[in-house]
Amino acid sequence: MRIGVLTSGGDCPGLNAVIRSVVHRAVVDHGDEVIGFHDGWKGLLEGDHRTLDLDAVAGILATGGTILGSSRVQPAQLRDGVERAKGHVADLGLDAVIPIGGEGTLKAARLLSDAGLPIVGVPKTIDNDIASTDVTFGFDTAVGVATEALDRLKTTAESHQRVLIVEVMGRHTGWIALHSGMAAGAHAIVVPERPFDIDELTEVVGRRFEAGKRFAIVVVAEGAKPREGSMAFETGATDVYGHERFAGVARQLSDELERRLGKEARPVILGHVQRGGTPTAYDRVLATRFGWHAVEAAHRGDFGKMTALRGTDITLVPLAEAVERLKTVPQERYTEVECVL
Amino acid sequence: MRIGVLTSGGDCPGLNAVIRSVVHRAVVDHGDEVIGFHDGWKGLLEGDHRTLDLDAVAGILATGGTILGSSRVQPAQLRDGVERAKGHVADLGLDAVIPIGGEGTLKAARLLSDAGLPIVGVPKTIDNDIASTDVTFGFDTAVGVATEALDRLKTTAESHQRVLIVEVMGRHTGWIALHSGMAAGAHAIVVPERPFDIDELTEVVGRRFEAGKRFAIVVVAEGAKPREGSMAFETGATDVYGHERFAGVARQLSDELERRLGKEARPVILGHVQRGGTPTAYDRVLATRFGWHAVEAAHRGDFGKMTALRGTDITLVPLAEAVERLKTVPQERYTEVECVL
Amino acid sequence: MRIGVLTSGGDCPGLNAVIRSVVHRAVVDHGDEVIGFHDGWKGLLEGDHRTLDLDAVAGILATGGTILGSSRVQPAQLRDGVERAKGHVADLGLDAVIPIGGEGTLKAARLLSDAGLPIVGVPKTIDNDIASTDVTFGFDTAVGVATEALDRLKTTAESHQRVLIVEVMGRHTGWIALHSGMAAGAHAIVVPERPFDIDELTEVVGRRFEAGKRFAIVVVAEGAKPREGSMAFETGATDVYGHERFAGVARQLSDELERRLGKEARPVILGHVQRGGTPTAYDRVLATRFGWHAVEAAHRGDFGKMTALRGTDITLVPLAEAVERLKTVPQERYTEVECVL
Amino acid sequence: MRIGVLTSGGDCPGLNAVIRSVVHRAVVDHGDEVIGFHDGWKGLLEGDHRTLDLDAVAGILATGGTILGSSRVQPAQLRDGVERAKGHVADLGLDAVIPIGGEGTLKAARLLSDAGLPIVGVPKTIDNDIASTDVTFGFDTAVGVATEALDRLKTTAESHQRVLIVEVMGRHTGWIALHSGMAAGAHAIVVPERPFDIDELTEVVGRRFEAGKRFAIVVVAEGAKPREGSMAFETGATDVYGHERFAGVARQLSDELERRLGKEARPVILGHVQRGGTPTAYDRVLATRFGWHAVEAAHRGDFGKMTALRGTDITLVPLAEAVERLKTVPQERYTEVECVL
Repeated sequence: MRIGVLTSGGDCPGLNAVIRSVVHRAVVDHGDEVIGFHDGWKGLLEGDHRTLDLDAVAGILATGGTILGSSRVQPAQLRDGVERAKGHVADLGLDAVIPIGGEGTLKAARLLSDAGLPIVGVPKTIDNDIASTDVTFGFDTAVGVATEALDRLKTTAESHQRVLIVEVMGRHTGWIALHSGMAAGAHAIVVPERPFDIDELTEVVGRRFEAGKRFAIVVVAEGAKPREGSMAFETGATDVYGHERFAGVARQLSDELERRLGKEARPVILGHVQRGGTPTAYDRVLATRFGWHAVEAAHRGDFGKMTALRGTDITLVPLAEAVERLKTVPQERYTEVECVL
Repeated sequence: MRIGVLTSGGDCPGLNAVIRSVVHRAVVDHGDEVIGFHDGWKGLLEGDHRTLDLDAVAGILATGGTILGSSRVQPAQLRDGVERAKGHVADLGLDAVIPIGGEGTLKAARLLSDAGLPIVGVPKTIDNDIASTDVTFGFDTAVGVATEALDRLKTTAESHQRVLIVEVMGRHTGWIALHSGMAAGAHAIVVPERPFDIDELTEVVGRRFEAGKRFAIVVVAEGAKPREGSMAFETGATDVYGHERFAGVARQLSDELERRLGKEARPVILGHVQRGGTPTAYDRVLATRFGWHAVEAAHRGDFGKMTALRGTDITLVPLAEAVERLKTVPQERYTEVECVL
Repeated sequence: MRIGVLTSGGDCPGLNAVIRSVVHRAVVDHGDEVIGFHDGWKGLLEGDHRTLDLDAVAGILATGGTILGSSRVQPAQLRDGVERAKGHVADLGLDAVIPIGGEGTLKAARLLSDAGLPIVGVPKTIDNDIASTDVTFGFDTAVGVATEALDRLKTTAESHQRVLIVEVMGRHTGWIALHSGMAAGAHAIVVPERPFDIDELTEVVGRRFEAGKRFAIVVVAEGAKPREGSMAFETGATDVYGHERFAGVARQLSDELERRLGKEARPVILGHVQRGGTPTAYDRVLATRFGWHAVEAAHRGDFGKMTALRGTDITLVPLAEAVERLKTVPQERYTEVECVL
Repeated sequence: MRIGVLTSGGDCPGLNAVIRSVVHRAVVDHGDEVIGFHDGWKGLLEGDHRTLDLDAVAGILATGGTILGSSRVQPAQLRDGVERAKGHVADLGLDAVIPIGGEGTLKAARLLSDAGLPIVGVPKTIDNDIASTDVTFGFDTAVGVATEALDRLKTTAESHQRVLIVEVMGRHTGWIALHSGMAAGAHAIVVPERPFDIDELTEVVGRRFEAGKRFAIVVVAEGAKPREGSMAFETGATDVYGHERFAGVARQLSDELERRLGKEARPVILGHVQRGGTPTAYDRVLATRFGWHAVEAAHRGDFGKMTALRGTDITLVPLAEAVERLKTVPQERYTEVECVL
């Protein structure tokens, strides 16, 4: 069998572990050949690739990033390129293509699958926003990095009687905010799913100071926004892909809380450190299992699906189902955490 | 409501997070009173306890160990003490008792539950050997610590052309060995569930050197043993509780492999570092959720059960079911990892 | 002997280790009494204090922040309060006062010393800008945190063909930028001591891309500024103490480099995580030794000085000498690092 | 200029950083050629080498181990091979040889230097036992790893009322034990420089329990031994190089303390994790500076010396002076730490 693999979308710890696992399972156990496309869908559209043997994946299990490179491709570009992609797959004699990526990548995967390509997707997202799987690799690492930062910030906030507003990733969902906030014992958690009321947030934080506490930690997802009319709020510009640029909610909240509470407040924006570097053991194991099962699915001819974690099992679910909706934090998870606004 | 809580058995990162969560949910949200028994069942048998308010659990979310202390109690002692325990529960006016512990603790919990005490158990084990729950807190931290050590050991082994035999925890099950071995890319994984054949292990490791590699990492669970007749093997003495003392398999394997392969081999025994210190974010979230749901179960009168993770949900399962059998690594998980013997 | 201790200025990992060490040495070995003033000089001016015995410092060796709290006091306030401070010292019967702090704190210490108070200072700064000592505690932790972040960011930058501009602390000196940049292999390091030329920086980064590299990491100290006339640059507003507020150089550099290079560039501002949390072993040892030697100096009556590291020895140097000038990065250290602008 | 480089002796975090720095400084700044000998002196004796260009050292700054491999060579072998080594150096047209290694390596370096080879040594040791330099790279990482383990073990010991005897590296000197013990707040530190009295140790630990404490942590260097007649003590066998094999002091101390105190005691042997993996930022900076200055010394013709840290400066000291004696912990350092036996 000949298998193509590519990584697409934003960086995510564990991408290399999937690539390595695909190569190990395919080459060692099945005697397959594996080729890797460069820079995501772009490599498939342009036929830009290289052979991946065991040496090519030596030493990458614990490394961040992706040895194949990644890029973001506009949906329109991909739609226009379907025939070209099919041509390259035919020319290279590929029996299966394994794209590893997030929501956008999986939508593209579905498009190509519907067009007849033999696709087995592997979901990837630090945001944990892909439905149909309990979780994907990358999320655990991102939460771990954010939690470690929160642990560090707590002592500083306490010693200096401050409110720290810590912005974590999450454009549309509050999973990283929820989990890192729970893990670090944040005093308020603000998520995109629930536009916040600035009066309520001020009160929650203010009550701590009234009770004699010396500090407060507020975790806010980058995509969080105030309830309409709640406070003046400047939204970000859009970037070249038409995506909204975020980078402002922590700063704006910090200024507003400082003004309202009369306490020193400071924003901390964790940024890209949440996306990079060594994956946790959890993510490496999950990524490795996903790679293994993607190869098995390819050998079974189980196409048009993606790998998914359900409990402790890896299963295959239809791409169509997986990309139907974004997985947001369900109501019952908020109930568990008193401090979610 | 008045709730008693205790921690019993070996140390496990996340115990304090459960205690804190129980207190937060019970005291803040329900207006309950919580008391903590000292040193596990011993505290319940002797009525040794203290009140746990919010101040008592401040700052413990990220700390290892247990502020309540722990101990191991002999089953016979506990059986003889059932009436005494019931007496203390009645005297203290407790409406629920939440024991946090591993297999032994949960068996004891079942005994007391059958005797009529209102018990909600919370499972704890770094070994991941408790059935009826996908996983418990402590395991992720233990795997993380073991993986980080393996990452470090790899570079040393490679630079010096060595075989390193790394002994991780796991008396009866190979979960830590399997996950840390997968996460770190070990070259052989030896687990208690499958008595190993020394010839086969020698061959697996030997093949690497024949292929020109300069080193090999073997991960072995402390409870692993050779297949009968496979090699001379000295088993450990028993400790005061009649439990077998382990500490030898890595050393014995190292000597045997050095002799057979003519390559320098060294044992590394990770030991108690796997049990202590700051829990990972994953374990803190899980522990916190377990504590929250245990309090809810108590308020519903849902006794004789323990909290369990199923997929992404926390559910309650009968203690009877949970302690029926040890959760060993299932066959299909070995299939995924070529290097498990 | 009766000794007062206080911590003043910005947060710094290792403050608690000094406090603990002072108490251990003084109470256990000398039979002294130690009292701690709350929130820095403010506590001394207001006589706000508590007794510090062994229990008070149990478990704080590895914790960030300061159990005594800190604050920034205006020089004028302190000057006006000298007599009040002397009064409190007399009323409390103190034979020595040990202030732990940075440049501002040590200047205040000198003022009070000149006014006749028995002072032994302990220098503290994550910025490494205090003269007369090889280094102080806090710096190693800050560099470690920044380096770990840079390690993570590298893989992300590479996978996505980006320029990352990473802002680390350092208002007046480039020590953290220099050391973390060297440790992580940054491609350009921009420091306050040397106003940068944007043309030169653009060329350094551009050459990497011309040579076929896919990414670049630029480390910039928060206080860095462009050479006059080099580029439009917006300077920060001042805060309530009249100090300049920084938070912009990475963002401004990022925008400018993106425009000039036509490559995606992103700012990452590490912020307060560099100040908080568990100190490294290096900082704990240094902080512990400083505390020990400060007590010894007090017992010798060696006042008006501060502890200092010279090679591997702890010595005492006059406060006057220590606060004379800020310790900037010397020319020969730039020579060692080709990538410093 | 043509420069040869090699790494010899036990593994040490930072070796790769030195190699990278030598190549960067020599190739980029001086236009030199650099070749690396494989597996230490063995490579020089056998002329086994490869060219090191910028690509060869890409991505190794933060990795443990050594890309050149290492080995231990018997002094006699080296003495017999001097002429061969000189022949290879001449054949390869080398103007300088930079061996990176510990005490044994530096002694060999001196031998070859006396025989006329143009040598600039770079000292390496996790043990910190090389005289004439304040410290070398590797030590900070080893202390960091040991301290992190001790931090973890503390919570476990406390929860379970145990004495933990933690064995760290240090065959002839107690530097790692001293620094990690200070950093983690150990209750007793046992070092090779001072044969311990078991009665005294028992008393120190016993006093803690009498004072109501629940646990004790004893840090012991692997080379520590009891004072003659103090207790029965089994010494290790010798390995193939005639070196003593250590691995027993923690176990023997644990058994003896358990027996004498009637408290549960457990040995933990940290082992090779102290030697491997990512170096700390401190060690990367020091290793990088050593590499840079070694190249400069070669260009100045400053041979027969090794790089050394003195305060914050890198200097060159005669090899003869550096290998004259082992750097043991001086008396005044014990004085600072009440718990050193």
